Amino acid sequence: MKVGIADTTFARVNMGAIAIEELKRNASLRTERYTVPGIKDLPVAAKKLIEEQGCDIVMALGMVGRTPTDKTCAHEASLGLMSVQLMTNTHTIEVFIHEDEAENDKMLAELVDKRTREHALNVIKLLLEPKLLVKMAGMGERQGGPDVGPLRL
Amino acid sequence: MKVGIADTTFARVNMGAIAIEELKRNASLRTERYTVPGIKDLPVAAKKLIEEQGCDIVMALGMVGRTPTDKTCAHEASLGLMSVQLMTNTHTIEVFIHEDEAENDKMLAELVDKRTREHALNVIKLLLEPKLLVKMAGMGERQGGPDVGPLRL
Amino acid sequence: MKVGIADTTFARVNMGAIAIEELKRNASLRTERYTVPGIKDLPVAAKKLIEEQGCDIVMALGMVGRTPTDKTCAHEASLGLMSVQLMTNTHTIEVFIHEDEAENDKMLAELVDKRTREHALNVIKLLLEPKLLVKMAGMGERQGGPDVGPLRL
Amino acid sequence: MKVGIADTTFARVNMGAIAIEELKRNASLRTERYTVPGIKDLPVAAKKLIEEQGCDIVMALGMVGRTPTDKTCAHEASLGLMSVQLMTNTHTIEVFIHEDEAENDKMLAELVDKRTREHALNVIKLLLEPKLLVKMAGMGERQGGPDVGPLRL
Amino acid sequence: MKVGIADTTFARVNMGAIAIEELKRNASLRTERYTVPGIKDLPVAAKKLIEEQGCDIVMALGMVGRTPTDKTCAHEASLGLMSVQLMTNTHTIEVFIHEDEAENDKMLAELVDKRTREHALNVIKLLLEPKLLVKMAGMGERQGGPDVGPLRL
Repeated sequence: MKVGIADTTFARVNMGAIAIEELKRNASLRTERYTVPGIKDLPVAAKKLIEEQGCDIVMALGMVGRTPTDKTCAHEASLGLMSVQLMTNTHTIEVFIHEDEAENDKMLAELVDKRTREHALNVIKLLLEPKLLVKMAGMGERQGGPDVGPLRL
Repeated sequence: MKVGIADTTFARVNMGAIAIEELKRNASLRTERYTVPGIKDLPVAAKKLIEEQGCDIVMALGMVGRTPTDKTCAHEASLGLMSVQLMTNTHTIEVFIHEDEAENDKMLAELVDKRTREHALNVIKLLLEPKLLVKMAGMGERQGGPDVGPLRL
Repeated sequence: MKVGIADTTFARVNMGAIAIEELKRNASLRTERYTVPGIKDLPVAAKKLIEEQGCDIVMALGMVGRTPTDKTCAHEASLGLMSVQLMTNTHTIEVFIHEDEAENDKMLAELVDKRTREHALNVIKLLLEPKLLVKMAGMGERQGGPDVGPLRL
Repeated sequence: MKVGIADTTFARVNMGAIAIEELKRNASLRTERYTVPGIKDLPVAAKKLIEEQGCDIVMALGMVGRTPTDKTCAHEASLGLMSVQLMTNTHTIEVFIHEDEAENDKMLAELVDKRTREHALNVIKLLLEPKLLVKMAGMGERQGGPDVGPLRL
Repeated sequence: MKVGIADTTFARVNMGAIAIEELKRNASLRTERYTVPGIKDLPVAAKKLIEEQGCDIVMALGMVGRTPTDKTCAHEASLGLMSVQLMTNTHTIEVFIHEDEAENDKMLAELVDKRTREHALNVIKLLLEPKLLVKMAGMGERQGGPDVGPLRL
């Protein structure tokens, strides 16, 4: 099994390295890395990782700036990643962190690290243990922050 | 006939279990379940249920958070589900509940339960008794709340 | 020639029946009806009417609620109907009425009735007399309300 | 060479006639006209002009009303025209005029006339003299109003 | 290796010439230029450069006006460029400059020049030295302004 890792030079954290470390620590998987300038370059990178490099799943890692134009770029990138999945019948897990999600650089870096690692674990489950996800259905899982858990009745 | 059930670990209610229970109670149908992390992972799951698992219809079950980013994710997921249907000529019934649709956790859980079950009944009609839907055309049906009924003249 | 009629149980007027009546009154055309729960189910219904039932054109009939989520759903449905047309090279005439277009139920029902019938006449022209549309080019035609006419110079 | 001319009965100016007149006055080109009810019907008309009528380029001519729903329709039509171009590798020049671009009917009519004619000239250049466009690259050309010209340094 | 250069007559700077100069100065690459009227014409131009002219990558160069309609056009063009990439498995680097990104014409021209050149260098890396991009992953690179660098911890 091979996991494609697409990340950007725009991001302010080496997200690809974090993802690869977490994947290797938890499973025996090959990885293929592809770094592009910005998040709008991620979808075609993901598609090439799947179709030209034989990846079974891709992590698309990116950071999103604070301006309305940045938000629009993220939306366009997300729609591109959606198309990639439907054109290839292959999961492409989007790991986007918005710069305005955290109060300062330190908290932002921690959020990037945590969300990337937790999505890496999801990738392992999707590839190797999909039944574990069924067991967690409806549990209010969150990547990067505390899980909110199921609704209290 | 086989119904694909795609749901998420992000949701705060086990929507897949509710859908399967309601389907089994009302019809003799096989089901295939596929749980993914979040709603943006649902479209490719739905497509794989149709193309790789032979499902005749899919229920795409998810909850949507309260932030603008959550709303954008729901929009992207909806566009993905639209594409899945047009690529496969197969209905994929979207059952999304927004967290801000209810005042508290209890009411939200009830809404999730009711809407999921009512859409499960729609799935049965689409598969087995499409003429029943024609009879209800224009009747102001709603899933999860009271039907509003036809316009009063 | 066969006209596909796709409508919904969500609508509060039996739009499919109105469309069929108007079509039959004005032309000799066969119709095929397909009722689905909501407007986001219309695109795949339209595509199936074209590809599986051999329809030469489709009317996609629906009502749109008052909330922002309803408006987003309409946008997604419209994009889906756009894709259906481009995938099939077949017109799919969208007849959507927004609940907030009229002041009360009676006026809304009249609007639904009038717009549906006027679009049915457009469907007949597109299928049987396209040159009549060329004659009306730039005439400020409106469906459901009074025509605004060409610009006054 | 054949130019497809798609326009609408919704528009308040006979845009198709203006476009054809300007094309004929400036070049020896055949035209094929296709009038549809509204701008959301233009993309499939454009695709049919290209694929079924053998047009080498299409002008998609329409007017956009003042309401938010009108603006959304224009956006959906534009996305459709984008898809047509990518599905056919053929330019489809969008000539949309928003009703709120001018202060009164007379100025609006003049704007429609001017923009349509200037886009007709662009169509001729794209088909017959593409190198003329390269010469104008970065010159701040505008269709319908005065050119803004290159940035002043 | 051949780089497609798509630009517009709408822009107020000769972006294509700048891109070609920077590419030629830094690498031995052939270029193919295609100028179109506006940014919404860029996607099909990019696709034709790839499929009909054999380009290995494309730079799509454009300027975006200040009005909401201009912003919507840019969004539509971006979605088109996304589709081109996924249909061709080929990078199409979008270089858009918004007129409201700078305070005056002089600063705007400098921004256009700088961003175009820096993206030209990215194009060279993507084509010839992709491993250099991996080395810069997460470094907070920006095109046109100062790099923001990695997060301070």
